[in-house]
Amino acid sequence: MSMLITNISLDGEEAAIYIEAGHIRTIYRKEQLPPQVDTDELIDGGGAYVVPALKNGHTHAAMTLLRGFADDMKLQPWLEQKIWPTEAKLTAEDIYWGTRLAALEMIKSGTVFFTDMYFHYPESRQAIQDAGIKAASGPALLDFFDDQAGRERRREMQELFSQYGNQNPEHEQILFTPAPHSIYTVSSKTLRWLGDFSRDNNLPLHIHVSETKKEVDDCLQQHSMRPVEYLDSLGLLSPRTIAAHAVWLEEKELDVLAKRGVTVVHNPVSNMKLSSGSCFPFKDLRDRNIPMLMGTDGCSSNNNLDLFEEMKIAALLQKHHFGDPELLNAEEVFAIGTGAAAGIGGGNGVFPNISSEVKEGAHADLLLIDPEHVQMVPNYNLISNLVYSAGAAAVDTVVCRGKVLMRSGKVDGEEETVRHAGRCAQALLERL
Amino acid sequence: MSMLITNISLDGEEAAIYIEAGHIRTIYRKEQLPPQVDTDELIDGGGAYVVPALKNGHTHAAMTLLRGFADDMKLQPWLEQKIWPTEAKLTAEDIYWGTRLAALEMIKSGTVFFTDMYFHYPESRQAIQDAGIKAASGPALLDFFDDQAGRERRREMQELFSQYGNQNPEHEQILFTPAPHSIYTVSSKTLRWLGDFSRDNNLPLHIHVSETKKEVDDCLQQHSMRPVEYLDSLGLLSPRTIAAHAVWLEEKELDVLAKRGVTVVHNPVSNMKLSSGSCFPFKDLRDRNIPMLMGTDGCSSNNNLDLFEEMKIAALLQKHHFGDPELLNAEEVFAIGTGAAAGIGGGNGVFPNISSEVKEGAHADLLLIDPEHVQMVPNYNLISNLVYSAGAAAVDTVVCRGKVLMRSGKVDGEEETVRHAGRCAQALLERL
Repeated sequence: MSMLITNISLDGEEAAIYIEAGHIRTIYRKEQLPPQVDTDELIDGGGAYVVPALKNGHTHAAMTLLRGFADDMKLQPWLEQKIWPTEAKLTAEDIYWGTRLAALEMIKSGTVFFTDMYFHYPESRQAIQDAGIKAASGPALLDFFDDQAGRERRREMQELFSQYGNQNPEHEQILFTPAPHSIYTVSSKTLRWLGDFSRDNNLPLHIHVSETKKEVDDCLQQHSMRPVEYLDSLGLLSPRTIAAHAVWLEEKELDVLAKRGVTVVHNPVSNMKLSSGSCFPFKDLRDRNIPMLMGTDGCSSNNNLDLFEEMKIAALLQKHHFGDPELLNAEEVFAIGTGAAAGIGGGNGVFPNISSEVKEGAHADLLLIDPEHVQMVPNYNLISNLVYSAGAAAVDTVVCRGKVLMRSGKVDGEEETVRHAGRCAQALLERL
Repeated sequence: MSMLITNISLDGEEAAIYIEAGHIRTIYRKEQLPPQVDTDELIDGGGAYVVPALKNGHTHAAMTLLRGFADDMKLQPWLEQKIWPTEAKLTAEDIYWGTRLAALEMIKSGTVFFTDMYFHYPESRQAIQDAGIKAASGPALLDFFDDQAGRERRREMQELFSQYGNQNPEHEQILFTPAPHSIYTVSSKTLRWLGDFSRDNNLPLHIHVSETKKEVDDCLQQHSMRPVEYLDSLGLLSPRTIAAHAVWLEEKELDVLAKRGVTVVHNPVSNMKLSSGSCFPFKDLRDRNIPMLMGTDGCSSNNNLDLFEEMKIAALLQKHHFGDPELLNAEEVFAIGTGAAAGIGGGNGVFPNISSEVKEGAHADLLLIDPEHVQMVPNYNLISNLVYSAGAAAVDTVVCRGKVLMRSGKVDGEEETVRHAGRCAQALLERL
């Protein structure tokens, strides 16, 4: 399966891209244009700008079904009265269509990969596969410090890995990625086991870290260590670890994250909406070369999966919170959104199934941007326009795994996904 | 000219709306459906949700031509090295197409009215008129404390008013609205004259107030008063006054704003991007019933004119800055975006040419929202979905002055506007 995309603008000059077996084989420029190659599929880019697709470092995809269910509440009543009782009523079918809705929304906003943490693994995995998007996907794990539950969860993890485990990580659409929820829902025994499991099988590992002050205070009281130190003492931190949120960090924890090569995911909208307090210490992470990704978190605390919006808000938040308009500029935040700031496709092998650049040999995951979109004009600075102005609205075409997932803003079968997700939400409401 | 919009959802129930001469004449519900009326134009809403259109309380429309020209800089070098020298090169034609581009962008994101402050008044006014959108529009005034310049600017203001002044405010598409730039660019003599001019002619008056700490510190040093007190001493504050930004306010200033009935415009994106410091004191304003609007500011400090995005960021910023997730909820911020929180169309007569509700007798300025948009599903809470999830992307149809300005996401002549604006920007770049 090959594809040729012609009549595009790459790095400010006219180009064409030849894609084969999910990878960018050749980039043609100047005197090589038009390229003389046989191809299965020919796409006229219409003068579109080509940029790397976005990667969502932390979400709970199927929570699209809880979009707008409860907002503007304090954390504990929101979780205890609204989110948890509703989540408990989600069926396997809900998870399938909730994840399909999430994948559709991400594709439509230029995202081709996400790190997921949720329940009903077979169904969420099937939904990801059917949607054609890439992922590093759960299963989530919580044992609530119960020995027997811990044993069962570890056995389930082992079984799911036997069934779905990564054969060839570079070519997997979905990387099997254990997702212990957090230090306040998973026992140290299970966490330690997962650290070993991740190391022995070379698996990414996805966990919430230092999202709230309460998490830090409780950890200090119980373990006389801060969360990052505690996780490190359990052998859980490595270049395979994806730490979501990380807003309450001290210097010594930053040093540990840097030393261990942990990838940290920034979720500004969720942190602001839930008033997590503090602020993602971008400058401290950048100065230590800590790999960074951008994440949307789940739809119940955002309430969308639009990473372009997330990038703009991230840049605004740093400037506001730290009082420095030069902090986290458009290029820097775009590098976080594409995975470049995490070294994805470069030095960091945590997600070998994606790349962060449009270059020969890279995975063919890219976006065509409409140059005539009202918010893309004038075009003094492409990245500024993408981050601060047009965002997702200007994404015309999405290519993932060398296949077209969206063309002229349309995704095959999107009406069906929206209809089924709406039906599941309605039925969920009636069950409550 | 009459219009009937059928098959819509209003306040959660099926409805139809009959519009005549720019106003909502009749709302049909339940047993009155389908309505039996003759009409010039019939629109099938396709099950769309109907909501009031948004109003942009503060912008500099033609600055679309400076979108992305300079970002991520400190205020003074940004203004002195980038913005001012470039603005000085803008021609009357630039202003026309820059304003057309702005109007197009606002229409496409659900905004039907804006308060503008800029130069080349005849051309910006012509652009607004041609675009079909409503406005309270300039001219901007700066005299830089020069007596002769002050005399000339006041004479020009008087002349422009003679030419364009409001005949019948309730039916004007464009309200003539003097726009003294600020206390640090306009002399007290001219400000005092404008206060009288606004009162004598019943004109809205639009001014930047307390955007930066420097403005406050300089005012204290020069006048021994804070900016709001100083403006009040000049007779400039009244229910006709539109005060943009207002992030550096003390208690006594809040009391003055409340007493004078000033409408305050919140511009969170611009304030965050430029690190204006402090934060719009929403709760203090709400508790004093101070009228509030939402604004985007100009495209050089945003970099778009999307009020839906502005509402989401406003809600997130309050929660983050003040550490309270319940602060500025979706309904409250939507009321600011539509003008309801400013009493527009209700007690506050500052802009008699707009309304903030979809009700009989109101101006026919409304939006049809696509119920099948991926980010509108599920629909537990329409306002939450509009503010926190879908935003502008779900706006299908825009009605302003009882006329359809956008249908199925398309605006007549949009390609031409984008092309001309792009051409003007290119020529501007070559002149620099």
